Amino acid sequence: MIATSKTAVSLLLISVLLNLMTGVPAQTPKSDVPRTGKNVLSNEDDAAIRKVIAGIEEAWNAHDMKAYGKLFREDADWINIVGMHWRGRDAVMAAHIAFHETNFKDNRMKIDAIETRSLGNDFAIAVATMTHDAFRAPDGRTFPKAQNRCTHVLAKGLDGWKIVHGHNVQVDAEAAKHDPVNKPKK
Amino acid sequence: MIATSKTAVSLLLISVLLNLMTGVPAQTPKSDVPRTGKNVLSNEDDAAIRKVIAGIEEAWNAHDMKAYGKLFREDADWINIVGMHWRGRDAVMAAHIAFHETNFKDNRMKIDAIETRSLGNDFAIAVATMTHDAFRAPDGRTFPKAQNRCTHVLAKGLDGWKIVHGHNVQVDAEAAKHDPVNKPKK
Repeated sequence: MIATSKTAVSLLLISVLLNLMTGVPAQTPKSDVPRTGKNVLSNEDDAAIRKVIAGIEEAWNAHDMKAYGKLFREDADWINIVGMHWRGRDAVMAAHIAFHETNFKDNRMKIDAIETRSLGNDFAIAVATMTHDAFRAPDGRTFPKAQNRCTHVLAKGLDGWKIVHGHNVQVDAEAAKHDPVNKPKK
Repeated sequence: MIATSKTAVSLLLISVLLNLMTGVPAQTPKSDVPRTGKNVLSNEDDAAIRKVIAGIEEAWNAHDMKAYGKLFREDADWINIVGMHWRGRDAVMAAHIAFHETNFKDNRMKIDAIETRSLGNDFAIAVATMTHDAFRAPDGRTFPKAQNRCTHVLAKGLDGWKIVHGHNVQVDAEAAKHDPVNKPKK
């Protein structure tokens, strides 16, 4: 019990220090809004879904597009931070392969928080907040280090949970100061 | 038959003319990627879902937040174009009410295209591409007239289809020129 508390405090301190060092805003807590009964996933499904999202981080940082592709169902769509819409896993992967050979070649990302909810028994949503390193886009513009927030819709099948739809957006830290609901911490 | 063709050609011409007049890029076709059998909604569900999305446009332009709120299920989340994440319909509506009293007070939007797919029998996804008028954000910056692309996850209940999760992003027209999959029309 004491050991667990110490570990928790250490992890918290490390997290705070890392945030101070990187200048990235504090993480969204993992479970800041309790879900109603029907939206809570079983522990098993929740763990499996978090593993898929962790797989995104792992495959991204290793630029292992074969591993990346295995996280998606064949009919998956993806909408990226600039609104490009790729329809079907082949298109999603063609785009990711092209970008990981160029602007994301050495790019790294880190998942800061994951929030999950069920949609019936066979579907779920995982919202991941993550920090992406700066990168130069194919149009020449530089995107600074920033948080992204990504919605993943997942489906449960015979081969486990797979992503069927993804939608990402860049978190605008300036705009966040004017969020009428989530008041920024002073 | 001939009448139908004439109507179709007229609608196409009107659409092309409107795009030329507004300078907004050509619409995403409604069904440019055929969905596999399991992803096709019944005509009835498809029509009901398109009606919900049309309801977004109608309520937005009328700034009728009471009508807007009726399109959402109580446990709905929303992630907006700058990555703000509102959890639960009360929060989603509090944010929309605040913005429609200020920066969206006179803002208008127009849905350009809707793409739908089923997620089993009780859930569905509708991706809407729409054009939003320019507006001044609460932080003082001006956002020019631009297309947004919004994922709506919907659930079918006793009171019909309702939005349970929304995620919006601004379409970056400059970045779109470098889309590795959807080659821009010359």
